Parts: sequence; structure tokens; C-alpha cells
Amino acid sequence: MHDALRNNALRLEDLDAFTLREHLASGPGVVLVPVGSLEQHGPHLPLGTDTLLSGRICQGVAERIGALVAPAVAYGYKSQQKSGGGNHLVGTTSLSGASLTAQARDLVKSYLNQGFRHLVFVNGHYENYQFLYEGIDLALEECGIGPDTDRSVLLLSYWDFVTDQTLAAVYPGGFPGWEIEHGGVLETSLMLHLKPERVNLDRSPSGPPASLPRFDRLPVVASRTPESGCLSSPLGADADKGRLLYEQVVAAIAADTAMELSLPEAVRA
Amino acid sequence: MHDALRNNALRLEDLDAFTLREHLASGPGVVLVPVGSLEQHGPHLPLGTDTLLSGRICQGVAERIGALVAPAVAYGYKSQQKSGGGNHLVGTTSLSGASLTAQARDLVKSYLNQGFRHLVFVNGHYENYQFLYEGIDLALEECGIGPDTDRSVLLLSYWDFVTDQTLAAVYPGGFPGWEIEHGGVLETSLMLHLKPERVNLDRSPSGPPASLPRFDRLPVVASRTPESGCLSSPLGADADKGRLLYEQVVAAIAADTAMELSLPEAVRA
Amino acid sequence: MHDALRNNALRLEDLDAFTLREHLASGPGVVLVPVGSLEQHGPHLPLGTDTLLSGRICQGVAERIGALVAPAVAYGYKSQQKSGGGNHLVGTTSLSGASLTAQARDLVKSYLNQGFRHLVFVNGHYENYQFLYEGIDLALEECGIGPDTDRSVLLLSYWDFVTDQTLAAVYPGGFPGWEIEHGGVLETSLMLHLKPERVNLDRSPSGPPASLPRFDRLPVVASRTPESGCLSSPLGADADKGRLLYEQVVAAIAADTAMELSLPEAVRA
Amino acid sequence: MHDALRNNALRLEDLDAFTLREHLASGPGVVLVPVGSLEQHGPHLPLGTDTLLSGRICQGVAERIGALVAPAVAYGYKSQQKSGGGNHLVGTTSLSGASLTAQARDLVKSYLNQGFRHLVFVNGHYENYQFLYEGIDLALEECGIGPDTDRSVLLLSYWDFVTDQTLAAVYPGGFPGWEIEHGGVLETSLMLHLKPERVNLDRSPSGPPASLPRFDRLPVVASRTPESGCLSSPLGADADKGRLLYEQVVAAIAADTAMELSLPEAVRA
Amino acid sequence: MHDALRNNALRLEDLDAFTLREHLASGPGVVLVPVGSLEQHGPHLPLGTDTLLSGRICQGVAERIGALVAPAVAYGYKSQQKSGGGNHLVGTTSLSGASLTAQARDLVKSYLNQGFRHLVFVNGHYENYQFLYEGIDLALEECGIGPDTDRSVLLLSYWDFVTDQTLAAVYPGGFPGWEIEHGGVLETSLMLHLKPERVNLDRSPSGPPASLPRFDRLPVVASRTPESGCLSSPLGADADKGRLLYEQVVAAIAADTAMELSLPEAVRA
Amino acid sequence: MHDALRNNALRLEDLDAFTLREHLASGPGVVLVPVGSLEQHGPHLPLGTDTLLSGRICQGVAERIGALVAPAVAYGYKSQQKSGGGNHLVGTTSLSGASLTAQARDLVKSYLNQGFRHLVFVNGHYENYQFLYEGIDLALEECGIGPDTDRSVLLLSYWDFVTDQTLAAVYPGGFPGWEIEHGGVLETSLMLHLKPERVNLDRSPSGPPASLPRFDRLPVVASRTPESGCLSSPLGADADKGRLLYEQVVAAIAADTAMELSLPEAVRA
Repeated sequence: MHDALRNNALRLEDLDAFTLREHLASGPGVVLVPVGSLEQHGPHLPLGTDTLLSGRICQGVAERIGALVAPAVAYGYKSQQKSGGGNHLVGTTSLSGASLTAQARDLVKSYLNQGFRHLVFVNGHYENYQFLYEGIDLALEECGIGPDTDRSVLLLSYWDFVTDQTLAAVYPGGFPGWEIEHGGVLETSLMLHLKPERVNLDRSPSGPPASLPRFDRLPVVASRTPESGCLSSPLGADADKGRLLYEQVVAAIAADTAMELSLPEAVRA
Repeated sequence: MHDALRNNALRLEDLDAFTLREHLASGPGVVLVPVGSLEQHGPHLPLGTDTLLSGRICQGVAERIGALVAPAVAYGYKSQQKSGGGNHLVGTTSLSGASLTAQARDLVKSYLNQGFRHLVFVNGHYENYQFLYEGIDLALEECGIGPDTDRSVLLLSYWDFVTDQTLAAVYPGGFPGWEIEHGGVLETSLMLHLKPERVNLDRSPSGPPASLPRFDRLPVVASRTPESGCLSSPLGADADKGRLLYEQVVAAIAADTAMELSLPEAVRA
Repeated sequence: MHDALRNNALRLEDLDAFTLREHLASGPGVVLVPVGSLEQHGPHLPLGTDTLLSGRICQGVAERIGALVAPAVAYGYKSQQKSGGGNHLVGTTSLSGASLTAQARDLVKSYLNQGFRHLVFVNGHYENYQFLYEGIDLALEECGIGPDTDRSVLLLSYWDFVTDQTLAAVYPGGFPGWEIEHGGVLETSLMLHLKPERVNLDRSPSGPPASLPRFDRLPVVASRTPESGCLSSPLGADADKGRLLYEQVVAAIAADTAMELSLPEAVRA
Repeated sequence: MHDALRNNALRLEDLDAFTLREHLASGPGVVLVPVGSLEQHGPHLPLGTDTLLSGRICQGVAERIGALVAPAVAYGYKSQQKSGGGNHLVGTTSLSGASLTAQARDLVKSYLNQGFRHLVFVNGHYENYQFLYEGIDLALEECGIGPDTDRSVLLLSYWDFVTDQTLAAVYPGGFPGWEIEHGGVLETSLMLHLKPERVNLDRSPSGPPASLPRFDRLPVVASRTPESGCLSSPLGADADKGRLLYEQVVAAIAADTAMELSLPEAVRA
Repeated sequence: MHDALRNNALRLEDLDAFTLREHLASGPGVVLVPVGSLEQHGPHLPLGTDTLLSGRICQGVAERIGALVAPAVAYGYKSQQKSGGGNHLVGTTSLSGASLTAQARDLVKSYLNQGFRHLVFVNGHYENYQFLYEGIDLALEECGIGPDTDRSVLLLSYWDFVTDQTLAAVYPGGFPGWEIEHGGVLETSLMLHLKPERVNLDRSPSGPPASLPRFDRLPVVASRTPESGCLSSPLGADADKGRLLYEQVVAAIAADTAMELSLPEAVRA
Repeated sequence: MHDALRNNALRLEDLDAFTLREHLASGPGVVLVPVGSLEQHGPHLPLGTDTLLSGRICQGVAERIGALVAPAVAYGYKSQQKSGGGNHLVGTTSLSGASLTAQARDLVKSYLNQGFRHLVFVNGHYENYQFLYEGIDLALEECGIGPDTDRSVLLLSYWDFVTDQTLAAVYPGGFPGWEIEHGGVLETSLMLHLKPERVNLDRSPSGPPASLPRFDRLPVVASRTPESGCLSSPLGADADKGRLLYEQVVAAIAADTAMELSLPEAVRA
């Protein structure tokens, strides 16, 4: 095995083409694609939170199942008020739906055409999901890949793999619901575990969760988004919760993916 | 007031242009746009279930707030396995994301350009939401309508207005979750209330709720969708629950919309 | 045969997926797609005239040839001044060309993919034709359906099936030409036959036919469209003419379609 | 006046930018855009017939009204069986609807942005019309040009300017209808007048006019198009009829355009 | 051989469909597509310079290798300041990238579908290249033409075939670089050879070459483009240099193309 | 000044939204966007070479001019044979032109809308340039930003800033030309300076530069690309040359950008 892979260099951007060729010839041919955003996450978390989290989760999963990690899709679909505060906020830098769909479509086609057998999009920004789904579907149609295939594309949002048990540990006072988890306890805990130097806990907003209507209104009524840009307070977040969340989610995604794609899930030393 | 409006003819397709002109000159200028799908809903419900439900809900709301009802968007985005069984099933007839987004964009522009002040998209098919949102956002950008406007577009899915109290009444054994409500107790009850002649209860599938992975896989593994095409059983559905659901939801949407758009909510005779 | 079909419920939206499956397994697999518009039709006809007429014609044809009727495409391409008065008039709510083409393309693909063998688009709004044609052509290319196929898509405008004999009966003073038949004798007569409660004859505009230039000018010079929005007067329209038109056109489309698609044309009881 | 213009060099491609600048500063700012096709026209006419005819008509009109002539749009929308024999025939080289619309949109924007005040699209290929219309409409929207403007875009097909009197002279036995005029008497006569060296009359197809269904079928049933590719015979065409047609049509377009755009129509020496 | 071809009528627009059919049946099936622009070229050259030059080069090559010449793509991508002075200048009439790409894609598909085996795009406007490339690539993907094919599309810019020896002869004082050859010695010399009546040498700008930054800035700073619109002076241009350039380039393209496509390069009488 | 900025955290993804808000309020509002590719670069360089180089150059420039660095556009336009070996090679993962253009357009709009005043795209992959240009142009049109603006977007490829003096030092035997610099001395030297652990010099290909035709052929003739995927040998590359290149280029871009945007260029400690 080539040095690059032996050194756990799982990032595609770090591999040379000849090593990749060997990998595809001998390995399972799985690539994980982190998808994030550049989006305001309150005063205490950096703009790249979603990209960083999905990227680190991919890395964790990749180490367990022998996959490679693609360069992240670092810009996401427009932030919506009810899930991310809204697209009008400074720092939030977004793609149109068509643009994100086109990117996903191109990536699926380009990865499959060069010999990968399975792609796994690991999403870290709520608003992306449907546009990624559409891009994947279009790519498979254009590639002529139908039901009788041994190739596949998986799409998931990492928070769907958090178990009830983990939720109970992270939110001892009761889980307030995914819809307002933006810059809240979950994301902040994960960041405290994975990138503490980019978290500024003493700037954490407090105050009650955002109370938003059951509809979306456009143009957005800006005053409905809390001043902080967060939909719930990160108070209670800590690195231990972050470690718990990270390890549980990585293990769950690795297990499901390995089973789905008939991969041997490596035991990590 | 013109006959057409006096006779409660709230459907735009039934009005003539001159009556509409008067309506826009004197009324609040609100149009509700039902959005549905043509999609398999199991052996007991018709393909047009989503369109019929969103249309009837619009009608109920319109009567209360003095709005008009637009012709429905009768085809929706591709059915996804985890919310609608999948796009591969007979009867499911779908639009691409770009097509649905373009349609929403054109409708917003065309309704606003002729003098409507507020549009409300009432969605009845889960998969549509993000593509409608994008179409609305693009339309407002192209019309140059920004934050300082007295016009607006609202977007909602009707099930987000079901209260916990209603849920408890409809699912006395506990609510199994929205994600598997496709052809289940909620939709079937609503249909039994609103269009019983199109429900064939003795063909209702039984059996446990569908158990689907936490990821989406494409191409779809068809065998994961239950034979019936439903993700949960409609057993327990009845017309009374349907009436409860319908009336509660219509009242809630009417109340929220009237308040949001500063409309007088009419008392129904 | 299942109840739904036995009761002449030919509308796809009224069928359940299992009944449709049987239908496709045993029947000819033909679906008629009405295409209309939401467009001003003068002070005496409703905005939904084109959609209603194409839908009712589809129903008549379907009963004769054993086809199903799809949900209508209820919004059409931009009204043009020389055929519909112009897109600037209140009530006229239109799609862009790309949007209508995309919708037609998606419908063709989706219907063919689920097992239909023939689609027939029945157009009721002049401006739609070319954009529907393009959508059909793109769909067949994307599906890889070329000359050697037993599947087909037909496209027609219903007025092309009016015979000279019928025209002579409907316009005893001479036919003024299709180009100004918008809200005139033909459409008004059909509506008086098919939906009299939505016609308000005492609001009928009189006056000479519109005199429009031989070119199109954009932006439209609004003053060229008659105040009424109609391009010719409906004076002389009556329900008998409507019945004649309807029955002749339905019979002609049914006959041509049945022959083209080798369908047994059913004798109606 | 600069040499180029003095020598009747009305073609934009022959002018230099500085002369054009003077022209726009002092003249009416009208550009005529010929739109044609590359399409089979039977064994006796060249593939470029539509482009040549619309180009020459533009030239005739331009000389009379002091307009400039733009480079032709030399490829048109897909030939349809009922108007041009079909897109499957050798020699027929076509654009998609989106492509032609995009080209028209870009040309309108680019000509208006550099200072032209009026564009006139002179169409010579039936199938183009709606896609050009859409491109013009999109361009004006994107340029923010609405009803209160002194700029305009005209769109016309040259045959709409043939008078009944001319028709009677050209078709002494009665006019068979525009829909089958493809490679027939009208186009052949015009070519005999304008470009006789590219007409090969001894290869003219004879035989009755094509008899095509009242619907379009896709994929096309190739055998329905006559072997010659022509929908009617050119027998009876001659250069005199061509001269009559050309001069009458040019005069009519020049007169209508001059009046519409308030141009002084020059008397030709 | 048919008259049209015997008379050296190599232009597709001049051929009839039956002659083309014979040509494709017996010949190599090569079509050359000139691609130009409508763009200011200073006070001394006409707007159609790029289209004229690429067209004439195609004609020269076609005569040598027995190919046909397609109607030119007469409008090109937006002029950029560093290669053509900028898109803001009067006379410059441009397409968007999507529009040019769509046109190239459609042409490749349409030519290949009717039986041509090889297309050669001969580009005369720098800014076009990448958009043409993309159109070709998309067309081949959509046609399902992959590596194992005997069909091909070539794309070239004619100036890439100018040899160092020719450059030395044309620019005895040293070649200033392709990037500022817009309306300079090369294009002017070619025009003096090929279309002298459209060159107005006494209006030639003098002055030093344009000095533009190493970046592109948008919106363009108009004052950076020389008053003349030319990036270098045409002083020194003459018809002899034009002949040398033309003959050398035509010979080189003919030789390379003939070898690449295994064509017998005809000796011209 | 906030900690994040004081610690030289210039990457947008590392900033929180409130710090960014302060930065935009007080600073020049410049963001640098690195654009790269995921592309084979021979056996000795990693796939992410272009992204890494443009990112590091951005960082160097940002430190000097007080700009921020955006997340990189990490996938580029299709590799072309004459500049990158071709899009068929394993490891090369590419976007379509429309997709890259859409992404650039969205980023320009999103960054300008949130308050940035100047964007600088720093390109590291030859094939991207025109598609980025088009995206920028479209964005400015859609934002209504014309010539009279104090905002701007710059676009550059970093190698255009290498001086002749530097070239002479890096290629003592003479510069072979930019067109074959793919995985050659320049990129390899830069990588040896900036990321030596990802360079595997002992796998460097030797052999003469690739000899490719003057045209592009599609589909690509794969055998024309050297086995290594490199168009010229990296022999002679070393870290000192890399440092020279890097420092010269960074200084030049910083100087030009600072002057163009009237920024004070900071002296680096």
C-alpha cells in the first residue's frame, strides 16, 4: 500500500491520481462527500460550522469503512428563516437551488465515470437536502443507471443518526426539536469537541428559543430572527456532549453505510 | 357585488376578468394556491389525494378570509421513498425540481404583476416544499421586491397546522410521526370527510409501519416500500377524525393568515 | 372490473394506483392530457375557459376510446395580443416558455416511464402549442425513444378538428378566422353547452372584431386590445351551436386517435 | 455621410463601429434581424432558402426605411412535419427551443444596450415564431422595459404580409393554404426572382399536396412526408410571380414598419 | 457529380437536400463551421471581421479537403476588454455563454444525427473558445458518443496555425503577442487580402499598444480601452501579408485536418 | 480588534458573523475567492494541487492587503487535453460550464448583497477562466451594477503575474510555455515550497513535453496524453524555485490589487 494511504491520508485532494487508481482497482470504491454551508451561526460559532462538522464526520466514517473523503461542497442552499435564521444575514453566503443541484449532479457523474462505485453525501446544512437529492436523481438518469445496478448514491443528514439515547444525554431538560437547532447545544457541543479554538463560549446568546410562524414568509420579516442569529441558546453545550454526539453519529453512519454497501467495517486500532 | 362572488364562487377559474378587476380594486388581493401531486396513495386512496386535500383546505380558508383560490398545481416533485414510497411506483407522475420551481416562480410573478398583493401557497405533498420556496425567492428577486414591501408570499404545508390536541384525538395510541404519514390515518380520515366516494376502505392495507433507513438511496431499492405503497396503515381512520382535522387546520391557517396579512377574518354563516 | 372504472371514473386523479396498474396491464394505455390556461376571456366568460373546454373534450374522447384523462395543465404560455388580447390583462396568469416546456417534458417522461403507451395532449390555448411540442420532443430524446417504437405522443389543438360544415353552421354569416376567436362565438357556444352557469351573456361585448397589425409588437400597445378583452363578439353564440361543436369535435378527435393508435373506438350507450 | 452608408452598405457586418455610432446618433436606430433556417426544401431549392429570403426581404425593407440589417439568425427551430416535413430529414439542421429563445433574448438585449431603439425580427421559417417571441419578451423584462417606453421590438413572418390580391395572382387555381407552403409555389417563385442560380426547376417534385393528420405525432412517422420533402408542388412557380411577391411584401412591411415606428419611408430612386 | 458540387458550391446553404444526401453517402462527411462575432474592430475594419475571416478560411480549407461549409455562427460570446476592447462598445453584439454553448451543442447533435461524421469548428473570435468546447462536449454526451467512435468534432482557433516563420514575416519588428491582436496587423492584413473594399486604411488608429492590467475587472473601466477600440495599431498591415497569412493558415489547417480525419487532401487545380 | 482577526484568522469560515459585521463596517470589504480543481496532476502531485495553490496565494495576498479569504471553489471546469491532460483521467472530477458559472454568479451576488465591496477570484485551473468570467458578468447584470459603481469584481489567474525575470530563474533552460505547464516545474516547485509532504518527487515523470495538436478533438484520443498525465516533466523543480515563485506572485497580486482597489498595502511584520 502506498504511503499516502498508509498514513491515513483519506482526503482525495491529498492523493495523487496513480494511488487513487490503485485504490479503485482494489478497494470498495466509496467516496464520502461532505456538504455544508457558509452561514452565520451566531456570535460564538464560525461561519464554516456546517462544512467543518460534515467534513469531520466524513473523516471519522471514512476511517472506519475504508472510504475516501472528497473535497467539501462548502457553500449551501439559501438559509431559511425557520431553520437557519434567514438568507439576509451578514456572513450567510448561499447558492441558488439550481446551482447546488447542478453541482451535485456533476459530482455524481464525474465520480461514477472515473470508477467510484458508491457515493455518500453527508449533509450538514438542513436547507441543502432536496436540492442534493434532485442532483443525484438527475445524474443517475443521465448516466442511464437504473434499478439493476451495483452502484449507488446515498444521501443523509448527520443529525438523523443521533439516537434518542444520545439526545436524552445531550438535552437532559428535554430536546427542543431539530427545527430550532441552529447554533444551539448540538452544533456548539460538536464544535467544542472538534474545533474548540473556533468557539467563543463567552459570546453565547442566551434567551428563549426563537418563536417562528408555521409558515414561511418571503420577503423575510427580519425582526423575527433573534438578534443573535441563533434559533436556540447553546447554553449547556460542552465538549463531552460533543464527543458523545460525534462518536455515536460516526459509529451509526459507519455501521449503516457498511451494511448497506456490504463493506467490511474496519475495527479501529 | 357581482353574482359570481355573491355565490361564493371563490375559484379564480370561475370568475371573469372584469369581476376579478373589481375584486382586486376593493378587496385585500389575496390568492391561495393549492399545490398537490399525482401520486400513488395505496389501494384505498386516489392518485389525486394531495391535490384534492390542499384544494379543499384552500377553499375552507378562502371562505373565511375573503381570498380567492387559484387553479391547483396538480403535479408535484418526485415522490421520495421515505415520504411517499418512491418515484418508481405506477400512478406517481412527477415533475423535476427545476420544472416545479419554474412554475412557482412564474405564478408568483404573474399574480403579483396583475395586482394581487399576497399569495399563499398551501402545500399538500411533502416533497414540494423546497422547490416552491426557491421559486418564490427567485420571483421576488426578479420582481425587485425586497424587505420594504407591503406584498408577500406565504408558503406552508397544511400538516404543520395540526395541533398536538388534534393529533392526540386522531391517534389515540400515539402519533407515529409525520415522516410515515402517506396514505395513513390522517390523509385517509381527511378523504373520508371530504370525498368519501373516492375512498375504498375495504382495500386498506394493514401491517406495521414501513421501516426505512435513515438515508436515501438512489436508485431506490424498490423492495423497501411496502407492497401497498403506504408507509403506515390507515386503520383507525374515520370521517369524524377527518372533520376534526379539516376544521382545525382550516381554522388555524385562516387565523394565522388573517393576522399575518392584517385581514379581517370573516365569520362563516 | 373495479368500481372506479365501472362508474366511468376516467379521471386519473380519481383512480387508485392498483386500479391503474390493472388498467395498464389490460388496456391500451392511453392518457389524454388537457392543456388550458388561466386567461381573461372578456366580461362574459370565466378565466378557466380554455382549461374547462380542453378538459371536457378530453372526457368526451376518453369515454369513446377507453382512455384515461390526466389532471389538466391549468396554466398556459403568455397570452399574445393577436390571439388572446395580451399578457398584460388582469386575470391572465401565465407561464414562461421554458416552464411550460419543462412541464410537458416531465409529464411525457413520467407517464411513459410508469407504463402508458400513448399520450395525447389536447390543447385549448393557442399560445401553448410550440412549447408543448418542444417538451414532447425533448422527453422522447431523453427517453431514447426514436423512430422504431410502438409508443407515441400526439399533440393537437381541438379547433383544428372543427369541420367546414360545422363552421358554416356556427357562423352562418361567414367564419371570421381562427386568429380572432378569443371569447367569441365558438368558445362562448361551447361554454353555453358545457357550463352555462359560468356564462354571463348579458355582459357580452358587441362591436366589430379587433383590428390588429400583422406584426407583434413588444412591449404591447395596450390600447390595441378592445376594452372587452375579446377579439371578436360572441353575439350569435348559443348552446345548440355549442353542442354541435362539442359533439363534432369529440367525435373527430376520437375517430382520428382511435385509428392512429389502433384502438377500438367504443360505441357509446 | 460616410462612404459605407452612402454606398448602400446597409449590412451591419459591413459597417465599422465608428460609422455605426454616427448612424445611431443621427438616424432612427432601427435594425432588421432576418431569421431563417437550414432546412431541406426539396430537390429543387437550397437548404438556406428561408435565411436567404428573410435576408433579402430585410434588405429591401431597409433600403426603404433607412434601417440597418443585422447578420441573420441562420439556424432555426426544429422543422415540424406539418410545416416543414420534419426534423428527421437530411439537410435539416435545427436548434432547440431554448437555444433559439436564448439567442433572440441576447440579441435584443445587446442591440438595445448599444443604442438601437427598434428591432424588427423578420422571420422566414414558420417554426421559429413562438421561440423568438419568448426571447423578445424575456429580454424586455430583463432590461426593465415596460409599457412606457419609446423603444420596441417587432416580430413578423413575411408571408403574413402577402395580400389576397397577390395570392390570387400567384395561385390562379386557388391558394392551397400556408400550412403546406414548404418548397411550393411561393418559396420557389421568390427564389426564382432572387437567386435563380440556386433553383433547379427540372428537379421539381410534382404530385398532390401532402395529406397530413390534424395532430402532430412524435416520434414522426417518416413515411407521411412526401419523398420530395415538399408539402406541395412548385409547379407553376416563376420569376414574375416571385418579383410580384417580393415587391408587394417588401412594400407592405416597409409601410407598416415606417408607420408603426414613425419613420419617414424613403422613396427609392 | 451534381452541378452544385461540380461548381465548387461548398456552402451547405447553397445545396439542396438530395445533393447533400448523395454527398454524405459517398464523401467523407465533413462539415466546417465558421464561428465569428459581430464586434467593433476599430474605425478601419467592419463589425463582421471575425465572421468573415473564419468563413473565408473555412472555404479555403473546404476546397482542399472536400468538406462542406456550414452557415456561420455569426454572433459570439461577449467581447472582453483584454482581448476585444470590452462588451460595452457600440457595434459589439454578443451572446451569453449559455446561449453560445447551447447553439454549439444543438449544431453538433443536428449535424451528427443527419449523417455527418466529422465537424470542425473554425473559430475567429477569441472569447468563444471555451463555450464552444462545452457545447461540443455536452452534445457528445447526449448523443452517447464516447471514446470508441469513428466520429469526431474538432475545435480550433485559426491563429493557432500561424507559424513562427509567418509571424516573423508579418511582424518584422517582433510579434507583440496574440492578446492584443484585435484590429491590428494580422486581422487588417487578412481583410486587405480577402475583402479590401471593407477596409478603410486611412482611418487606421496609430499609437502604442493598449496597456491593460493582468486581471479582468468587471464592470469594465471603459477608459482603459483605447479610443479606437483596437488593442494594437494596424500600421504595417498590407494585402501581401494577408495573402501570406491566409494561405499559410489554410494550408496548415487543411493538412492537419486531412491527416487527423484520414482524408485525402485534394490538390487544387 | 477581535481575537479572531488579531490572530490572523483571515479565513471567512473561521470567523463568526458578528466579527465579520465589524470587519465590513470598518474595513475595505475585500474577499478573495480561491478557485481550483480536483484534477490528476501526475504521479507526484496530489489531486488538490490547483485548489491548494490558489488558496495559499490568496492567504498570502490577504495578509498583505487586509482582505478575507473565502472557502475555495474546490471543483473546476472539465480538464482539457491540451491544458490538463483531459477529463477522462482517473482523479479528475469536474463541473460542467453551466454549473461553474452558476456558482460564480451566486457567490458574487451573495457576497455583494451582504456588504462586501470587492471580490477577487484567484484562479488556479486554466479551464475555469471563461466560465468564472461569465458568472461574474451575469451576477453584476442581475444586481443592476453598471459602470457607475464603487464595487468591483476582479478575476485573475495567478500565473499571469509571474514575471519574465522569475521565469528565467525557474527555467534556466528556457520557458517551455504555459500551455504545457501541468504538473511541471512551476506547479511542482510551488508545492515543494508550500506542501512538501504531499509531493513525491521520486515518482516524477521524465520524458519530453507532450506534443499535442493545435486543435482540440472530442471525444479525446486518450493515447495523446502522456502516461503520466503531465504535459511536461517536473525535473528541475525545487523548493527554492517554489519560494521565489510564490513570493513574487503574491507580491505582484497584492500590489496590483491594492492599487486597483485603493487599499493600503500592509507591510508584513
